Amino acid sequence: MKVTVVGAGNVGATCADVLAHKEIANEIVLLDIKEGFAEGKALDIWETSPINLYDSRTTGSTNDYSKTADSDVVVITSGLPRKPGMSRDDLIATNAGIVKSVTENVIKYSPEAKIIIVSNPLDVMTYCAYLTAKVDPSRVFGMAGVLDTARYRSFLAMELNVSPKDIQAVLMGGHGDTMVPLPRYTTVGGIPVTELIEEDKLNEIIERTKFGGGEIVKLLGTSAWYAPGAAAAQMVEAIVRDQKRIFPVCAWLQGEYGMDNIYLGVPVVLGKNGIEKIIELDLNADERALLEESAVAVKGVMKVLDDMNVVS
Amino acid sequence: MKVTVVGAGNVGATCADVLAHKEIANEIVLLDIKEGFAEGKALDIWETSPINLYDSRTTGSTNDYSKTADSDVVVITSGLPRKPGMSRDDLIATNAGIVKSVTENVIKYSPEAKIIIVSNPLDVMTYCAYLTAKVDPSRVFGMAGVLDTARYRSFLAMELNVSPKDIQAVLMGGHGDTMVPLPRYTTVGGIPVTELIEEDKLNEIIERTKFGGGEIVKLLGTSAWYAPGAAAAQMVEAIVRDQKRIFPVCAWLQGEYGMDNIYLGVPVVLGKNGIEKIIELDLNADERALLEESAVAVKGVMKVLDDMNVVS
Amino acid sequence: MKVTVVGAGNVGATCADVLAHKEIANEIVLLDIKEGFAEGKALDIWETSPINLYDSRTTGSTNDYSKTADSDVVVITSGLPRKPGMSRDDLIATNAGIVKSVTENVIKYSPEAKIIIVSNPLDVMTYCAYLTAKVDPSRVFGMAGVLDTARYRSFLAMELNVSPKDIQAVLMGGHGDTMVPLPRYTTVGGIPVTELIEEDKLNEIIERTKFGGGEIVKLLGTSAWYAPGAAAAQMVEAIVRDQKRIFPVCAWLQGEYGMDNIYLGVPVVLGKNGIEKIIELDLNADERALLEESAVAVKGVMKVLDDMNVVS
Amino acid sequence: MKVTVVGAGNVGATCADVLAHKEIANEIVLLDIKEGFAEGKALDIWETSPINLYDSRTTGSTNDYSKTADSDVVVITSGLPRKPGMSRDDLIATNAGIVKSVTENVIKYSPEAKIIIVSNPLDVMTYCAYLTAKVDPSRVFGMAGVLDTARYRSFLAMELNVSPKDIQAVLMGGHGDTMVPLPRYTTVGGIPVTELIEEDKLNEIIERTKFGGGEIVKLLGTSAWYAPGAAAAQMVEAIVRDQKRIFPVCAWLQGEYGMDNIYLGVPVVLGKNGIEKIIELDLNADERALLEESAVAVKGVMKVLDDMNVVS
Repeated sequence: MKVTVVGAGNVGATCADVLAHKEIANEIVLLDIKEGFAEGKALDIWETSPINLYDSRTTGSTNDYSKTADSDVVVITSGLPRKPGMSRDDLIATNAGIVKSVTENVIKYSPEAKIIIVSNPLDVMTYCAYLTAKVDPSRVFGMAGVLDTARYRSFLAMELNVSPKDIQAVLMGGHGDTMVPLPRYTTVGGIPVTELIEEDKLNEIIERTKFGGGEIVKLLGTSAWYAPGAAAAQMVEAIVRDQKRIFPVCAWLQGEYGMDNIYLGVPVVLGKNGIEKIIELDLNADERALLEESAVAVKGVMKVLDDMNVVS
Repeated sequence: MKVTVVGAGNVGATCADVLAHKEIANEIVLLDIKEGFAEGKALDIWETSPINLYDSRTTGSTNDYSKTADSDVVVITSGLPRKPGMSRDDLIATNAGIVKSVTENVIKYSPEAKIIIVSNPLDVMTYCAYLTAKVDPSRVFGMAGVLDTARYRSFLAMELNVSPKDIQAVLMGGHGDTMVPLPRYTTVGGIPVTELIEEDKLNEIIERTKFGGGEIVKLLGTSAWYAPGAAAAQMVEAIVRDQKRIFPVCAWLQGEYGMDNIYLGVPVVLGKNGIEKIIELDLNADERALLEESAVAVKGVMKVLDDMNVVS
Repeated sequence: MKVTVVGAGNVGATCADVLAHKEIANEIVLLDIKEGFAEGKALDIWETSPINLYDSRTTGSTNDYSKTADSDVVVITSGLPRKPGMSRDDLIATNAGIVKSVTENVIKYSPEAKIIIVSNPLDVMTYCAYLTAKVDPSRVFGMAGVLDTARYRSFLAMELNVSPKDIQAVLMGGHGDTMVPLPRYTTVGGIPVTELIEEDKLNEIIERTKFGGGEIVKLLGTSAWYAPGAAAAQMVEAIVRDQKRIFPVCAWLQGEYGMDNIYLGVPVVLGKNGIEKIIELDLNADERALLEESAVAVKGVMKVLDDMNVVS
Repeated sequence: MKVTVVGAGNVGATCADVLAHKEIANEIVLLDIKEGFAEGKALDIWETSPINLYDSRTTGSTNDYSKTADSDVVVITSGLPRKPGMSRDDLIATNAGIVKSVTENVIKYSPEAKIIIVSNPLDVMTYCAYLTAKVDPSRVFGMAGVLDTARYRSFLAMELNVSPKDIQAVLMGGHGDTMVPLPRYTTVGGIPVTELIEEDKLNEIIERTKFGGGEIVKLLGTSAWYAPGAAAAQMVEAIVRDQKRIFPVCAWLQGEYGMDNIYLGVPVVLGKNGIEKIIELDLNADERALLEESAVAVKGVMKVLDDMNVVS
């Protein structure tokens, strides 16, 4: 198996590191536009192989996509962070240009690859990659829900003082404050979390999750990378090992949940064919209202991209 | 960390093998009464260390309990299988004698150990060990629910074609046909299983789980060992690594679920202190009725032991 | 990746178990001629998946080779143990018949598979499979050296009280008492073992290794399985993950070490193409003499097979 | 087990991340003087626990050493990098002040801890920690050889196209260009590397290893962290799991190799008691001369520290 990660920043390099030490692929290519940068990260990662006793060959390349040829899965983390004074639409324009160009190159050399988008703003960048790639949407999707859910579960594990292994949850909708929490779909060893925690405390944790990215930025001055990188790697693993994992993934809806032509976070089954099934939960009226609200917000940013005519 | 497994039959040896290759303890002692038997199994296991690249020292001993001294956790798998023509009460008498003797030796050399019983009939053997050990019941408990739940989850994973990692469940009560299934407490990636499967199919799987041990016996002519051994090892891991896992464990109830002085399968938090908490689910009337029925059956076999005066 | 293990006895089932919990293949098929036997073992193994948190689907089949179709690697463990009163030639005749029939079926359904022989007597059964399969010998080879080396390394680790991870060794030649030990090629963290141990003690350990299988038989009354099963699984892993591991493997020589048309234990590089390279050590006269002696013994048993006309 | 990592920069945080996902300790404390920095890194790491399915609790603290109380092992990564215009002696003075203060706090709260120094310049900082801690030198040692060896082995694996798992080596002496390579003690699957590679090519790889840190700096503009962090974590693992690993470690010599009162890279056995044994290789005259040369250089920087009277 061969996996490419485009963008050797902290998230991309961490993703490659996890793929390597878990031996998820035997060939891992890290790519970046900055001269020598991907090579340096890849070499540092490869130098851990005699320590952590794995065999995954990790190499770096400065923008030479021929090195990525015939990848089974490609993770795209490219894009700039939002800078002070930059409007949301400026950010979308800039990163859409980057994601479009990366996707074109990826598809050129790996026409059969599954593509996982990590670039921000997530929903619209996934849409951008889909428009560019012109392949079945089961093969182009975005990573946000796995990360959001991991944060939510890690907070619950701390609060309840139980193992994070035993906490499962579904979060839906967009990334960040349009995230749709579903306490009815949160369990601890199979036990509904609502039997184990006060409502106020749970709501506090949900709010903390919505702003989980910002919490790290506030502490570190930069974005998180351990959890985002691991989350992307976990999606790769589910595909490469055909695990049929159930993850919330930013997926293209075509009628599911009564919605069409929108990339939105929904639970899916992830396996060797990419998104093998979108799971439709039996949402109640309140939950559905939240999801629709989230969809409106996402549709808004998708329209920004449509109006830019970046991808045709 | 040091862990002892008493009984080097297939279940005990498999438990030791899992403890070793997962490096759960750095010292593992396997004990058996049959001359050379534990030594042979332990040697075979140790000979995998250069292959699977772990460092846990595994050694065997023919009944020399001084070798088990200062174990942090002891797993007891000793006992005879039920033979044709043997009554249930005969089996209890025989195995209670064995478990009593083993427990006395274990406690003598490892007075601080947590003790996990795997011997059958499970509930009454756990009770026997508790009566013998005369230590806090948070340190003496039985393995049945982890195995039953694993079978149940593996059947659901096959049926739904999803990852077993994403299925969580609580089963309560006794082992075997007095097991109490709780469909309300079975989830798939946090989603209630009842949203994903037909009721008939789920009931079929529950029935199959109740007789999961017998299914293997029918196929192999002997009892299972991979899953039972792994299940016991997982309980050891939760203790040794203080994982605070939520497992259904055969635990001593003192008022929980309105019951007293009975060993019954209930969800607990398992950590470095053994059973750190018994979780009381908010059962409905039907579920509670099933649990009480199961308790009656268990009380019945406990009384058999009491009447024998094996342990005083 | 798909891997088939033929023969669901202890060695075959253990091999399947290791393949499963290390997620070496996502599809594992266990096959046996005994009705229900492979199904029972495979089910017991699969029931550990929710415990050990892996996704490899393990299934069993009673002799239906269509279930093994398109396997990437096939491990053949079939064959009878030598019974009292059975001559060596009788054993060869019986097991050659079995291995021939299995190999024909394997090749029919998985014409591209790499084939690892574990059946005994090892060298001649590997030869038998090669004659039957009629494929390049880089794809048909036997497991003995990995096991012998593991035993040797585990004994050295005990004696020196160091980690088995840090001991490396090459053993050559046939399996058992025609094994060729090479103290010059045994190192501890890169340090020649001869700097760390007395010669007498080392010779004692070498002798113990030669009879390592018999030592377990004497203790248990049956053959070992943990280390043999793990050793076979490790060879599968090297192929499936293209690890380029250096292992002593029973390989077909065509000029290497000045020998032709013989299956003999030599160090090789094992990767996705099977045996990718045979490493020719710079043996001294004494070492070479031992190797030639071993070759004579192996040629002897190969001739037994040739004379039987089992495989034409 | 509890492990503290002081310094939440890239190396320290990576070390904590490896300790966490390999479940080497169940309690990991990351400490830094920069407000919120360790907390942010620790939180990001903890948020990977539901993804990578581990239970190690990782927490951060801004310089509150009471949180590190009763650690079994402490890794010290604190110190500034050398800035342009800064002399070597300025760097030593600055970092010695930091390491002294950190060590005092560590010993105050964890008087029984083993202490691993990663701060630079490595040999003299380890010496500084030893002078400060006033404990047995088997408990205070430095990480350099594990990293240098890992780089060397990873380069050899690339060159020979074999698994890094199969390459073992001993490097001695100081860190960087005073490193003492020992081709006689480098093996591939137990085979002396000199049988497998041209002398020129090997010398090239040795030179590359000496400047392995600089190679990454040149590519990235900053120092490496994946391999250094993993290397420190591996030393922790050897202690916590009592693995008796053989590693080149910066250790206090008291007569070994004919040297006294010097911290120098030598092969040791690392286990629960820290350095359990210093291995004295049977060096030839050339190798010994290189080691003595390296020792002179290290003595030189140790004298710089002595003359500063930073630690008394």
